[in-house]
Amino acid sequence: MKKIIIAMCLTSLTTAGYGEQSDVAKFDPNMIVKNAIVDDSGVKWIDGQYLPLEGKAFSDVDFFYDRLPKNVTTNVNPGVRNIKHHSAGLQFRFKTDSGKLWIKWTPRNRELAMDHMPSTGVSGIDIYAKGDDGVWRYVKTGRITNPDGGVCELGWKPGTPCLINLPLYNGIKTFTLGIEANATVEALEPRTNGINRPVVFYGTSITQGGCCSRPGLSFVNIVGRQLDVPVVNLGFSGSGKMELEMSEHLTNIDAACYVLDCLWNMDNPTVEKNYEPFIRNLRSKCPNVPIVMAEQCDVFSPESNYKDKVMRNLYEKLLAEGWKDLVYLPKTKMYLDSEGTVDGCHPNDRGMMSLAVAFGEAVKIALDL
Amino acid sequence: MKKIIIAMCLTSLTTAGYGEQSDVAKFDPNMIVKNAIVDDSGVKWIDGQYLPLEGKAFSDVDFFYDRLPKNVTTNVNPGVRNIKHHSAGLQFRFKTDSGKLWIKWTPRNRELAMDHMPSTGVSGIDIYAKGDDGVWRYVKTGRITNPDGGVCELGWKPGTPCLINLPLYNGIKTFTLGIEANATVEALEPRTNGINRPVVFYGTSITQGGCCSRPGLSFVNIVGRQLDVPVVNLGFSGSGKMELEMSEHLTNIDAACYVLDCLWNMDNPTVEKNYEPFIRNLRSKCPNVPIVMAEQCDVFSPESNYKDKVMRNLYEKLLAEGWKDLVYLPKTKMYLDSEGTVDGCHPNDRGMMSLAVAFGEAVKIALDL
Repeated sequence: MKKIIIAMCLTSLTTAGYGEQSDVAKFDPNMIVKNAIVDDSGVKWIDGQYLPLEGKAFSDVDFFYDRLPKNVTTNVNPGVRNIKHHSAGLQFRFKTDSGKLWIKWTPRNRELAMDHMPSTGVSGIDIYAKGDDGVWRYVKTGRITNPDGGVCELGWKPGTPCLINLPLYNGIKTFTLGIEANATVEALEPRTNGINRPVVFYGTSITQGGCCSRPGLSFVNIVGRQLDVPVVNLGFSGSGKMELEMSEHLTNIDAACYVLDCLWNMDNPTVEKNYEPFIRNLRSKCPNVPIVMAEQCDVFSPESNYKDKVMRNLYEKLLAEGWKDLVYLPKTKMYLDSEGTVDGCHPNDRGMMSLAVAFGEAVKIALDL
Repeated sequence: MKKIIIAMCLTSLTTAGYGEQSDVAKFDPNMIVKNAIVDDSGVKWIDGQYLPLEGKAFSDVDFFYDRLPKNVTTNVNPGVRNIKHHSAGLQFRFKTDSGKLWIKWTPRNRELAMDHMPSTGVSGIDIYAKGDDGVWRYVKTGRITNPDGGVCELGWKPGTPCLINLPLYNGIKTFTLGIEANATVEALEPRTNGINRPVVFYGTSITQGGCCSRPGLSFVNIVGRQLDVPVVNLGFSGSGKMELEMSEHLTNIDAACYVLDCLWNMDNPTVEKNYEPFIRNLRSKCPNVPIVMAEQCDVFSPESNYKDKVMRNLYEKLLAEGWKDLVYLPKTKMYLDSEGTVDGCHPNDRGMMSLAVAFGEAVKIALDL
């Protein structure tokens, strides 16, 4: 009976291929012209829904900045259904000839911070500029102390590619970009490395970005910048449990690669029960998409734990069955030393950087970069 | 007239040599026996004032965990007089044969966090253990969400040296360590490298520890662990202005080395006016103590700014006068890339680590390590 219900749910899910339906693809400069409002001080305000947005994989959502579609069912744990409203991994990417930028955003939740993660990371934004050498460099943080919203103003070198990372542990109610009245916004060129479908990370609080100091320092966002690949962040704090339905949502993204990073959120029996059906469904629906299987990061020990071993055995079994494009990411390189976390579990900015290197290497192998 | 007042203040300051009057030196195991209280559950509670404490340079204080004496006058800016109550750099260091530790602390201020620094760093504690290889390793963070106090409980390998870092941006009202009823606490052996007087860091919010995720990751504390030297943190957010009286307080510490790191908190005229009298007074009173002169860290540029150049000119002038044991620390190695801050100014945990390397190298030169 249970099986039948799951099957029904799976078939009722709508397809939302990233390449086809993403908001990046839908970006239309004319929409900006139509919807922009110039205020008395000569600032032209553009709502975020008309800006080129990456990291959003689904269009059929409850709220515009959600990370999963509205049809996520109760076969997925309630944490996911709540945390899908957080904007982790979403990022505006554009060029503008404006010499100044104004940004206003309002968060969904009034609780702006966690005790081990500041509001800059939970509810803030940060802005990067791409240099002539092709490297994205940090420019400014949009700090937020008022739950009614944050504002950020900065000078801008006209024509420089701009990247704005959205909050990791809060949702976005509204986002508005201000540019000079005569300026325009355009989408960035497709990536020259040919990777224009996203690397999809599915995982835990750590994947979601806990506990870095600002959004650009989540390891998922670092990998995106360093490898110059689009990323989709499906990290759900405490809730990455690999239910079969979640694999179906992943298959609905036209992905370059899947990274499975859920072990922290599953106990031993759940790994034994969920991992194999999950990965088999993913591969059967998306046979050509490489998959990275990540061990559970551990700042205290490089030794594999029971769950890692279950996953390793599964990996060996799948290889023996002839699976290709399966990358195993051991935990050994995820942390450099004992200083990579804020609390023994969640990476701080130092840990995020080493995780980004480890995950980045695995993704490079998966994508032949 | 102003000069006379300053002179009067300076002569009225009491001497509080670290080597003689520090609380480390005063540690007396008998005091623990006398003052410990065993509760009904068999935990022996010891008040922090009877534990071996490092990083506290003055005894004649308003509150036990203060970083400057009560006689700081109005010739020092009010920021210092307020922030001296923050416990940055204070650390308990001891050995115990207890198999478990319980820690309770109450912060002075009810505001536990800043928007760009979580409560774990502002008001929390963290615990390190020294391995058989002599390396201090992170063990646990004492998180705090209730302004009435935090609690932390952990298993302990009996006999392992323990280090507990106190909050960076809050003060301590009370601190209590719980050990097993039959266990004892003893001070650690003097350091084998012979450096048992402290390296005294005088500076800004960054020196104080803004904005790392937990106390052990302030660059001052990292330098202390990595070089195995005692440290005194006299970083005062927004308030490191090198008033002449502050130099006098520094001379009252029996220091191994002084690190001057105030440039962020001074405008150009203040650097021109204050730096030279400050450093001359320091050297005249403590002629044999090496001094490190640090440039202003800058995540966006390795170029010296005007204030750096004023300081550099002074450094050259003092060398030409025959000064020895003066170490110049350029900003070039302080950050590895653009990712070292939370807000463009204050280092995150990644920046703290690179600052620790840069400052550590300068201190090693100063101390002939």
